[in-house]
Amino acid sequence: MTERPPHGTARPGGRTARTREAVLAAALEELGVHGYAALTVDRIAQRSGVHAATIRRRWRSVQGVIIDLLAQHSGSLPTPDTGDLRQDLHELARAIADYHASPRSRNFIEATIVAAAHNPQVSDIVRDAFTARTEQVTCIVTRAVARGELSPDVDAREVIAALSAPFYYRLLVLRGTADDRLVHTSAEAAYHAARGGVFVPPPSGP
Amino acid sequence: MTERPPHGTARPGGRTARTREAVLAAALEELGVHGYAALTVDRIAQRSGVHAATIRRRWRSVQGVIIDLLAQHSGSLPTPDTGDLRQDLHELARAIADYHASPRSRNFIEATIVAAAHNPQVSDIVRDAFTARTEQVTCIVTRAVARGELSPDVDAREVIAALSAPFYYRLLVLRGTADDRLVHTSAEAAYHAARGGVFVPPPSGP
Repeated sequence: MTERPPHGTARPGGRTARTREAVLAAALEELGVHGYAALTVDRIAQRSGVHAATIRRRWRSVQGVIIDLLAQHSGSLPTPDTGDLRQDLHELARAIADYHASPRSRNFIEATIVAAAHNPQVSDIVRDAFTARTEQVTCIVTRAVARGELSPDVDAREVIAALSAPFYYRLLVLRGTADDRLVHTSAEAAYHAARGGVFVPPPSGP
Repeated sequence: MTERPPHGTARPGGRTARTREAVLAAALEELGVHGYAALTVDRIAQRSGVHAATIRRRWRSVQGVIIDLLAQHSGSLPTPDTGDLRQDLHELARAIADYHASPRSRNFIEATIVAAAHNPQVSDIVRDAFTARTEQVTCIVTRAVARGELSPDVDAREVIAALSAPFYYRLLVLRGTADDRLVHTSAEAAYHAARGGVFVPPPSGP
């Protein structure tokens, strides 16, 4: 136990990987049942069957576990490819709504925002994780450009951010859950704005 | 000191009002300088010159102070009335950006979201406060309807939420600050979507 490998270097499926899976799954369960406010290393230990001392040694704190959960979750967003921008945006909005539909996911998102508010390092990690997720799905926009649906000058990240923002506003600020209506309006609003040229940056001087 | 009037019942400008002002101002200052993570009743006491025991008796906790700050802040959003929907939306976006420009406001918003995550009662209060603020500025939309710029069936709250969401997404999720570009895109996107009929609910059955 004195030679502790850093995250991800142990062989997959080995004890280190199994421990990580158990701890992250337990943390997510706890978030779903009791929320972030009640999340402690001891509760994660109890639910996962992994010793609290082991969790503290490897993740240091609840925040460390949240950061690792974020790493595990990023990349889980599907990227629609229907051959039609409008349809792609609707499917992406649906995927976000489906993800937000589970209390576990909602509590996890809220936990990351809370952890970010408490810690500048976590804040950077949250920003990087969401920026990377946005980047992943920008190919929806680049494909639409290739098909001639949008101007080549369009800022793809702005389109994706415009579609995503209403879901986080609903969740974090209006304290509600996403519904079919929000899927419709967020996808349609992003589509109309994109087609209307809103996300084409102004020409910059030489 | 045993006959403690509830909030807002003491005469304006009296000792109760002065104490409240000092405590809320100190809390906001602390949020601006050290952020929510470092906010304690003792720090508020130190900065305001009001005894910690007095703060605990009246507001019970840091969360109680945040709730009172929220009550003080709601209603501070101006409502543009330029006679033109597009211009009104741009001015509203500018007002939100200006508010988010100060670290004090950003930390305050973040503090309310964190407090809401920790406490269902605070969550309800945050939801009500933001819903009320949204309601306040919906007259931008109803005036546009009266001028014939939008369909009478438009959901005014959806328009305002669409305009506001990108600012909270930028702040809370992307961990960045609002800039001129965000003012432009959020106002234009809301305008294009509203004009495109996105926020008109589908006709419901009899």
